Amino acid sequence: MARSSCAELGSENTKRCLHDTEGLPAGRLAGYAWYQRLMEKVMADAAPETVSAARCFGGTQYTFQHFSQTTDTTMRFAAFVPSQTAAGPVPVVWFLAGLTCTEENFTVKAGAQRVAAELGLMLIAPDTSPRGDGVPDDPDGAYDFGLGAGFYLDATEPPWARNYRMESYLMRELPAFVARALPADMKRQGIMGHSMGGHGALTLSLRHPGRFASVSAFAPIASPMNCPWGQKALGGYLGPSRAAWRGHDACALIEDGARLPALLVDQGTADGFLATQLKPELLESACAKAGIPLIMRRQMGYDHSYFFIATFVEDHLRWHARVFSP
Amino acid sequence: MARSSCAELGSENTKRCLHDTEGLPAGRLAGYAWYQRLMEKVMADAAPETVSAARCFGGTQYTFQHFSQTTDTTMRFAAFVPSQTAAGPVPVVWFLAGLTCTEENFTVKAGAQRVAAELGLMLIAPDTSPRGDGVPDDPDGAYDFGLGAGFYLDATEPPWARNYRMESYLMRELPAFVARALPADMKRQGIMGHSMGGHGALTLSLRHPGRFASVSAFAPIASPMNCPWGQKALGGYLGPSRAAWRGHDACALIEDGARLPALLVDQGTADGFLATQLKPELLESACAKAGIPLIMRRQMGYDHSYFFIATFVEDHLRWHARVFSP
Repeated sequence: MARSSCAELGSENTKRCLHDTEGLPAGRLAGYAWYQRLMEKVMADAAPETVSAARCFGGTQYTFQHFSQTTDTTMRFAAFVPSQTAAGPVPVVWFLAGLTCTEENFTVKAGAQRVAAELGLMLIAPDTSPRGDGVPDDPDGAYDFGLGAGFYLDATEPPWARNYRMESYLMRELPAFVARALPADMKRQGIMGHSMGGHGALTLSLRHPGRFASVSAFAPIASPMNCPWGQKALGGYLGPSRAAWRGHDACALIEDGARLPALLVDQGTADGFLATQLKPELLESACAKAGIPLIMRRQMGYDHSYFFIATFVEDHLRWHARVFSP
Repeated sequence: MARSSCAELGSENTKRCLHDTEGLPAGRLAGYAWYQRLMEKVMADAAPETVSAARCFGGTQYTFQHFSQTTDTTMRFAAFVPSQTAAGPVPVVWFLAGLTCTEENFTVKAGAQRVAAELGLMLIAPDTSPRGDGVPDDPDGAYDFGLGAGFYLDATEPPWARNYRMESYLMRELPAFVARALPADMKRQGIMGHSMGGHGALTLSLRHPGRFASVSAFAPIASPMNCPWGQKALGGYLGPSRAAWRGHDACALIEDGARLPALLVDQGTADGFLATQLKPELLESACAKAGIPLIMRRQMGYDHSYFFIATFVEDHLRWHARVFSP
């Protein structure tokens, strides 16, 4: 996916470059100095830009943005960098958010920084889909497909396949950025997520064995093949073949032989999506048959909100930290 | 301020009542049964209505709304009710938010419920101004006056005096609602706030001695008479007389003899409003002269955001709890 000219970098960067050269005499546009300056701009655009930085529990909470060659859009992600990085790189825990969310929800609502600061963990919270001018959205503007609903896979169907490449972005491009820009020990990574992001944490860790030493989920979509949210997303992004869907369904992946070392799941019993969309019993059954140690905690009276996540995020971060500091 | 008919209850309720009677034959509108039904509706409208409720750290996080006779608008407030209420009423800590905020910011961003759940404290977070159709706003739509910027006082100037009566709302009407609707021990109350809400916590506790057993603030506006935010607000709501302003300026109140038992303040050194708007040195000077024990903590590198509040809210809640459980 090498990109050699500004015009290939997508509409946002193209616009910026065109604007920058508008005032130049036509003759100078062909000169090497101009080309060199343009390339410097392109490279600067590709590096993460700090949107915000705030001190938080002795560390720093950042929001970055960068141009993604994978999704062909500007992407944002949040990163909490704990103070332990003064002594060297620290383990990384990824948090994948649910439908309608951005990189911001977990960052401002979960209260996870307090625990990450204690345990010396970096937290990375990416956005849930590509965004921007020209990125297609659900034709009816529904919340469960398109913008804010990337489902952590690479779409194969038009018009989604061009931008909706969240798996490649999260498994290749963003980790490379994180490794280059932040004091992260990429040999020690864990992943967790909520709802659609719980599905993401499960499927990405099953599809990329060895990448994540620890996995957990809050109210995950256990089997997208068997619920309306998932059927709409998999059908839209991957087409009608249920064989293709199996590669992005945690339960089917486990049935087909993928494995995890262990798994912690919290699920609220008052979650309005429990019976129709989440179906933790399917994950319990798949893990039981496969011999995957699953701790499934049904939390009495909790719903699907970030108040539920905030209540139990400490347990999850300790679950991840235990594998990094044996 | 007794209200005797539906039409006096303000535009929102009026609309609802008119709509409800539209289909009735004109003759029936004069009957007593209709009047009785209407009064029942008015009473129901005046009681807090549950907007949302979610289990959180073993307790419940509520958002309520009710029609306020004081502000002549529908007002929202958030309430965290800890599990200790099963054994009886618990102390209440009020949190007053800053410019642009609603009842939601502290509730979703500060992570305070974890500590309140441990200490058995109820948290009440009101909105920062009246809102709704017909409530006047800053003529230029600025963020620092009008909607989201009530400054916790009763305005005396038109057109603000009709709705902008946050002091009366917070000191009389809302506590009455809380006492009636929730398991709150109103003999044990503390108050804290952020920025404009820090100003509110300081001035309300100074103006109502004995009401709050404990007071603390995050980055408070120490002396609104001596900063642009405060001068605009006091001039707008109270008119040009600086004598009237002194009654709503923490430092002037202390100079004029008002007292607090003790005070905890956190202030970030990287707060962009520190030198121009907040001026903690004025509060230090006033407290020193008056002999008020002030713990002023300058927190290195912290800014004005909720990441700063989240980092130190545990210390503040323990500060409040210590006076309730000696």
